[in-house]
Amino acid sequence: MPYNAPISQIAHTLSRIARLDELAATGAFPNFDADLVAPILDEANKLARDVLAPLNPIGHKTGAKLTDAGVVAAPGLSDAYRQFVEGAWMSLAFPEAFGGQGLPKPLALAVFEMIHGANMAFGLCPLLSFGAIEALLAHGSPELQQTYLPKLISGEWTGAMNLTEPQAGSDVGALTTKAVPNGDGSYAITGQKIFITWGDHDMTPNIIQLVLARLPDAPPGSKGISLFVAPKFFVNADGSLGERNTFKCIGLEHKMGIHASPTCVMEYTNAKGWLVGEANKGLAAMFTMMNSARLNVGLEGVAVGEAALQAGIAYAQERKQGSVPGEKGSVAIIRHPDVQRMLATMAANVQAARAICYACGAAADLAEHHPDEATRKAAKAREDLLTPLAKAWSTDRAIDVTNSGVQIHGGMGFMGETAAAQFYLDARITPIYEGTNGIQSIDLVGRKLSMDGGAAMRALLDDVRTTARDARDTNQPQLVAIADHLETAAGALESATVWMIATMGSARDVALSGATNYLRLAGDVVGGCLLTRAALSEIGAAGQDADKSVALAAYFAEDTLARAPAAVASITRASQALQDLGAQLWA
Amino acid sequence: MPYNAPISQIAHTLSRIARLDELAATGAFPNFDADLVAPILDEANKLARDVLAPLNPIGHKTGAKLTDAGVVAAPGLSDAYRQFVEGAWMSLAFPEAFGGQGLPKPLALAVFEMIHGANMAFGLCPLLSFGAIEALLAHGSPELQQTYLPKLISGEWTGAMNLTEPQAGSDVGALTTKAVPNGDGSYAITGQKIFITWGDHDMTPNIIQLVLARLPDAPPGSKGISLFVAPKFFVNADGSLGERNTFKCIGLEHKMGIHASPTCVMEYTNAKGWLVGEANKGLAAMFTMMNSARLNVGLEGVAVGEAALQAGIAYAQERKQGSVPGEKGSVAIIRHPDVQRMLATMAANVQAARAICYACGAAADLAEHHPDEATRKAAKAREDLLTPLAKAWSTDRAIDVTNSGVQIHGGMGFMGETAAAQFYLDARITPIYEGTNGIQSIDLVGRKLSMDGGAAMRALLDDVRTTARDARDTNQPQLVAIADHLETAAGALESATVWMIATMGSARDVALSGATNYLRLAGDVVGGCLLTRAALSEIGAAGQDADKSVALAAYFAEDTLARAPAAVASITRASQALQDLGAQLWA
Repeated sequence: MPYNAPISQIAHTLSRIARLDELAATGAFPNFDADLVAPILDEANKLARDVLAPLNPIGHKTGAKLTDAGVVAAPGLSDAYRQFVEGAWMSLAFPEAFGGQGLPKPLALAVFEMIHGANMAFGLCPLLSFGAIEALLAHGSPELQQTYLPKLISGEWTGAMNLTEPQAGSDVGALTTKAVPNGDGSYAITGQKIFITWGDHDMTPNIIQLVLARLPDAPPGSKGISLFVAPKFFVNADGSLGERNTFKCIGLEHKMGIHASPTCVMEYTNAKGWLVGEANKGLAAMFTMMNSARLNVGLEGVAVGEAALQAGIAYAQERKQGSVPGEKGSVAIIRHPDVQRMLATMAANVQAARAICYACGAAADLAEHHPDEATRKAAKAREDLLTPLAKAWSTDRAIDVTNSGVQIHGGMGFMGETAAAQFYLDARITPIYEGTNGIQSIDLVGRKLSMDGGAAMRALLDDVRTTARDARDTNQPQLVAIADHLETAAGALESATVWMIATMGSARDVALSGATNYLRLAGDVVGGCLLTRAALSEIGAAGQDADKSVALAAYFAEDTLARAPAAVASITRASQALQDLGAQLWA
Repeated sequence: MPYNAPISQIAHTLSRIARLDELAATGAFPNFDADLVAPILDEANKLARDVLAPLNPIGHKTGAKLTDAGVVAAPGLSDAYRQFVEGAWMSLAFPEAFGGQGLPKPLALAVFEMIHGANMAFGLCPLLSFGAIEALLAHGSPELQQTYLPKLISGEWTGAMNLTEPQAGSDVGALTTKAVPNGDGSYAITGQKIFITWGDHDMTPNIIQLVLARLPDAPPGSKGISLFVAPKFFVNADGSLGERNTFKCIGLEHKMGIHASPTCVMEYTNAKGWLVGEANKGLAAMFTMMNSARLNVGLEGVAVGEAALQAGIAYAQERKQGSVPGEKGSVAIIRHPDVQRMLATMAANVQAARAICYACGAAADLAEHHPDEATRKAAKAREDLLTPLAKAWSTDRAIDVTNSGVQIHGGMGFMGETAAAQFYLDARITPIYEGTNGIQSIDLVGRKLSMDGGAAMRALLDDVRTTARDARDTNQPQLVAIADHLETAAGALESATVWMIATMGSARDVALSGATNYLRLAGDVVGGCLLTRAALSEIGAAGQDADKSVALAAYFAEDTLARAPAAVASITRASQALQDLGAQLWA
């Protein structure tokens, strides 16, 4: 079952949700031209569909290998990466100052959705480079930027993020890797990092590590970590590569999925690195990397969900089992209502997640580039609010969606080498890495709800209600029905928000035990709102895109938004009941 | 993390939900003595905890192997099976006439919950033997029964169920395996069967295949299939083993999980078998096997969920990450409210599923043994209604529960050899085999709701309302709050039932597309009702068991029952919206 990007769906989301026209109107993207979108998506699909997708099952079966010479990528990936670099796919949304193409971020999201959908293990390599690039762009000295950014942005080198240690996962402040000044402006880094995605490989001549470590005089905890950059091969003044640095991959993890993405144990032995940003301010720099990565992991959820949907539809159209009344012989299982329900739910959730992620990317661009300061500020608040939703809601849905994909395949879905099984297994990491989804929900109800006195969530609720009003004003029965659900759901989210903000102040543990269900509700409402926006944008238009937009919004409203009022109890009252049960279960 | 059976929870469920006293009062279990329960559970736990659990990760890593001599079980399993037979665990609930112990079925469920919890791949072997035994008990001639049942019931031989063929999965009527009369009362069976669990192995000297095949003059479809018994080695008149039959395992599937359970491709080449029951009535005989297997697969869901819960609690108590306000240093992650929420939800759902499965087993015993005919009939209807819930609701929850188990483990949960990962991977088959959960929901809304004019569901709703009333009458605030939820949820289930029965008559496809959500709702309500029953049975009692029962019911009510009203829309209205979306997605 080859992956084939849902180009019209993606293009529609770019224009209706990410509003590329609005981004272009900021004047910040002189290279952007609306006519570029179609050819870019078409070309990216060729890479995804024709090059990367066929390598996906091979990588699943073979995996990356650790040899004496380092990590060897799964068969075909080095050549695919070369084509990825030649196509200039890495540089789309990065600044021209360092060789980027200066295009809007959502366009890059669209392209990387395709790459992840075709081969998530491969896509992780540029995903980690993104984080490294963002960190250097935001915090690197001009010299470090000049040394590393052009080749990271071109894709000639890749980057990796070295955060986790055995005792320091979610709690990155517990890390113990040391960085000792060498006296020449560089530092000697010593320690062991685990779970380092694409920490080593043979696809590019150099790999640039971003490493969190602790200076000798650093305060304890997260206020004492600093960020360093350490290349695998040192870079001479003329840009050529010099000696090998003293870190290496000493082990690969055996994982449930993303087998072709090497998950490295990295050992640093007086490896030479340079400080990125200020000493002891590594946490802030890390969040720069993490924020980029969080949206991109959410996008992985969209992508692997889309791949599962495509595989599910294809299998359901081909596999014959059972009959329908009034017809002789067995029929394709797509004729069975329960299979249709699974596929429809998958499609609605994938599209809602796509809309959330693209909207988040558009907000990031507006926050950076809009000429009006108030708009920039509002967009930044929207980006901050949407980031945990993009990451956690999209990846939780990816678990559901790929789970249904397995179920549609019946016994075949349980076979380890079926594509549906690979999607399920690959997807399972997405709620975990780059901040577990539990951490996302704490970020949402802790930091994001309290920003600016709760203004960001109030603005979002206003948008939801405006969308509902617009839907009602169409007087079209389907849209009016959606408006009913959207209004009720907005009310539910509002009352949950009021409870959450109050309870965070009065009984933090009770509030936090409702955080995940709160995030789920918020994602449901935002997803439903964006699907409705997309449907509204088609009012007056005819054709399949218009009908499909309305049908997706209507189904999501009936299947998901309708549950919003009941979700409030699971946030508020269940969190109270939890305290009693906890006392029994692990007292 | 060793598995250790939750003995007090299991014993409590046996006495309060399965009502062993009520079963004993039927007079059908003269061997049963309430004092036996504790030692039986203790001894079974020794097998589960000390013998089977340590072999579970080994089997996951090594798997079963196919050699020229046939399938070789994973290391240690043959010896474990010997201990299983020596402990007489197989024969607990089978008739004394064939060497069984004649004990109540729920007691056997309790023991097999432990076995599956410790090692699901191992537990599948006796699970399949159960099906073979049930088929022979219900449909075999006295001669076949005498030949095969004593050694199947003792466990000296195992049984397997040969149903599926590549083109005949859920649609078993499409099978093409042939059985031609040999003229001596036996038949020559030829064909290929796939997905045959424990179809071959080296743990016992003989394996008894139950095989669905088609006679030469059989009508097409499901009305033309017959059931045969075919031993691996023929049985001489004196009971000794004779020549090898002409079937064999020609391949093993590579699966996502249950690696130690060999999933065989079986090739039959004029293999000699004997008809079980009447010609062309194989479907009815198959359902005898399937019904036994469905409840037992539901039990697997309970068991693997319990194992995931135990591993989750243990890891959360040991793993230190993050801090809590007012305390120095990092704390065990069980202190974090979101981790507590996951564990509480896991515990409440595992216990609800356990209650549903044990209640189903108790109903089966009453249906068979109660002296009063009306009671037998009502119990049979209850068993029929609960079977699809036991199978589908318990296994869907097992996916959720083991998914949370992975999440609690963070990055470690994604490593293939972590116990949490194994539970997640093993659990994934349970919604698929022995009738996919989609098939269960069709069975529920098609056959089970319409039995006897809907009397079974009405009786169930009456029970739920009686339970709610009893809870209200206690005047205890927690139980009154539960009563509120239970009454509202009963109303929701009733209105969904009315819609479902009406719509099955008027628009079958619309109804069927709501079937899975309907089953979910029914399972939520029954689970909530049984947890409340358990809590009520402790009224007046003091101590942890009583407090825990109430806390579980209260949390389940707030977290799950509270959502029941909103679920109705997802069944009724979403099924309508689905038709529109389907037309867009796969027109």
